[in-house]
Amino acid sequence: MLGCGTVGSALVGILQDRSAALAVQSGASLEIGGIAVSDLTRARAPHIPRELLTADPARLVADPSIDVVVELIGGIEPTEGLVRTALQLGKPVVTANKALLASPQGVALRTMAKEHGADLLYEAAVAGAIPLVRALRESLTGERIHRVMGIVNGTTNFILTKMGEQGADYADVLAEAQALGLAERDPTADVEGFDAAAKAAILAGVAFGYDVAGADVMREGITAIRAVDVEFAERLGYAVKPLAVVERAGDDALSVRVHPAMVPKSHPLAGVRNAFNAVFIEGEAAGELMLYGQGAGGRPTASAVVGDLIDAVRNRLAGTTAPSPDRQPARLLPEEELRSQYYVSLDVTDRPGVLAAVTKVFGDNNVSIRSMEQEGYAGEARLLFVTHLAREGDVQSTLRELAAIDTVEQIGGVMRIVGDRE
Amino acid sequence: MLGCGTVGSALVGILQDRSAALAVQSGASLEIGGIAVSDLTRARAPHIPRELLTADPARLVADPSIDVVVELIGGIEPTEGLVRTALQLGKPVVTANKALLASPQGVALRTMAKEHGADLLYEAAVAGAIPLVRALRESLTGERIHRVMGIVNGTTNFILTKMGEQGADYADVLAEAQALGLAERDPTADVEGFDAAAKAAILAGVAFGYDVAGADVMREGITAIRAVDVEFAERLGYAVKPLAVVERAGDDALSVRVHPAMVPKSHPLAGVRNAFNAVFIEGEAAGELMLYGQGAGGRPTASAVVGDLIDAVRNRLAGTTAPSPDRQPARLLPEEELRSQYYVSLDVTDRPGVLAAVTKVFGDNNVSIRSMEQEGYAGEARLLFVTHLAREGDVQSTLRELAAIDTVEQIGGVMRIVGDRE
Repeated sequence: MLGCGTVGSALVGILQDRSAALAVQSGASLEIGGIAVSDLTRARAPHIPRELLTADPARLVADPSIDVVVELIGGIEPTEGLVRTALQLGKPVVTANKALLASPQGVALRTMAKEHGADLLYEAAVAGAIPLVRALRESLTGERIHRVMGIVNGTTNFILTKMGEQGADYADVLAEAQALGLAERDPTADVEGFDAAAKAAILAGVAFGYDVAGADVMREGITAIRAVDVEFAERLGYAVKPLAVVERAGDDALSVRVHPAMVPKSHPLAGVRNAFNAVFIEGEAAGELMLYGQGAGGRPTASAVVGDLIDAVRNRLAGTTAPSPDRQPARLLPEEELRSQYYVSLDVTDRPGVLAAVTKVFGDNNVSIRSMEQEGYAGEARLLFVTHLAREGDVQSTLRELAAIDTVEQIGGVMRIVGDRE
Repeated sequence: MLGCGTVGSALVGILQDRSAALAVQSGASLEIGGIAVSDLTRARAPHIPRELLTADPARLVADPSIDVVVELIGGIEPTEGLVRTALQLGKPVVTANKALLASPQGVALRTMAKEHGADLLYEAAVAGAIPLVRALRESLTGERIHRVMGIVNGTTNFILTKMGEQGADYADVLAEAQALGLAERDPTADVEGFDAAAKAAILAGVAFGYDVAGADVMREGITAIRAVDVEFAERLGYAVKPLAVVERAGDDALSVRVHPAMVPKSHPLAGVRNAFNAVFIEGEAAGELMLYGQGAGGRPTASAVVGDLIDAVRNRLAGTTAPSPDRQPARLLPEEELRSQYYVSLDVTDRPGVLAAVTKVFGDNNVSIRSMEQEGYAGEARLLFVTHLAREGDVQSTLRELAAIDTVEQIGGVMRIVGDRE
């Protein structure tokens, strides 16, 4: 074991409590050979065997008595080198490291794993306990998948759920999430979508067979979402959800993106509340599937590691590896070519002719309006538009032109709508 | 292939359309060697290759050029003999046959498959396209599972959804389901829970490692559910759902049962509408998981068959088999020992002392009342009770005693409540 934080500590507990059952399932007695940690002196839970701790991860990986490496350090350095060494030695690696897998180095590690006939398994890297990677890799391997949409970040789902159900402001709910330990003190990785982007990149690989780097994923955070937009979304029959979307765009391109979206209340993803994760899969033959569960936390994540660990041990005993088909580099759809429905809210001066001027801008830019609601108050009015499917580039130019109109006081919320039946 | 009905026909289509991708995934070119059908003269879809049809399934199974058998005939005879022969010849079998798997013969076939080192795979037998069996068999294999609750019958979920959303009567919705092809002309297998009981038995095996026969599953249909009970359930914050439940009852017993139940609206199963299926899993480390999708239909079911087929081919090429741990016979919890919350509706004469008499009966039988609502009309009143967790046997004796009270005109609906937080 490399690393012994929340997930590692939970993993040790499961390996101890379930050792007899795990031996039956895997065909071998699983013994922790060593646990590499950065600080040998830190206080640890009483069930962590002190005598197994070491500060030398490289020696642990190279130790010939070690058969399988579980990497729970996270990040790219020094983990990349440790994982690489393990694979070169033909040792299977189980990891929960989404950042590493979504990095350019991650692609190289996958190739190296194949060359050395060693498993590189990462069920825990996306959506915690949810058996998503195996479902895509094995059950749906013959399926032509059209789209995968996931709520893969629990922090932002918690924040948007509370904003929707309590009408609370972003800043207040973020503070609550931080107090509950659901958000980091520096919440950037979650609220700006970096975490979800890495997971979207991994999903693009597993579900579609394309190599995508997390850094290339189109990414929009949730910090600009206002309580009033969430309220309007609810009134229009939508829930606001933090989505990672991977979908085919034509024959050889893929749209991979992370952004908040309005999802119709009747859609299964709309009911995924608080810190829960879920991934909705649309396949050609299988139809609509959704996998739901806890996306984070020590024990749920450790549970996914255990599933992979048993797999790795079984495969090693049988002299085989999990399927790992070749991948190709992805041609990513340029952002302006994305097609989506949009919600746009405008604060305007309540004067004759305003609506005509505004709708003309939509029309001039090829953005077709599906519905409009107006609510007036004291000389001002708020216009809520829902568009038909439109090109992102056209919507952006619409917004630029709208901002230049005198009677448009402010462009309020703008959000993509996903999962509606057009 | 044995059988070429809706699923078989969809399977042939997928094998034709996706042959290149399937060859990559499985490591072998998949070729249909023959299709055994009962009627060679029947009209079939144009994509079914006529020259592969045969009326002699036994010869097909024995043919040394056939490597894998896909059984889609259903039922126990003659399929049991065909599957047995295939396994004895060491040929992997992929089947969607829930009746066979939940029969005593099914247990023997599993043992035989292990002895002959041949895979017996049946993802398609429970919950159609949902990758449930593999998730339980592989991802969650190290997990101690407490309870599995599934909506595993689309017909009854469709009927109860419509009753809830439209206030319609059972008979009317059943007729609608029959017109839509969602219910058979003789709906017994669905509405009396036989179909779900077979699936519950299979889940008991895959999730808990116990051999359970479908015939031993506690089973209650949905035919007694009245529109008014569904309406009251909605008003109390519950959706009525057709559930298959498998849960641990103490250290060495299992409760396996099929019945309609009231599920809190906030529970993920409550949002599973129409003919969709979903299975909710509660694990010790993984926490709450739910897998959702289409439980029936040609293409979704064929999609699950394809996943198994690729598995079978890959395993055969690698000289291995899918994990198939030994099972033990289950000690099933006697029905009267079941503990659950209950909903009870009573029509009573609206006279002083009635409530006292009624609640005394609950108390005398150790059934604790959590909430009561009363609605009166013209000398009569309807009492709606929700109990705390109670013993099934105690509730049954409560109901018997209540029926004997003069002022109790009628015992209306009685339903178990599942998934509430007590």
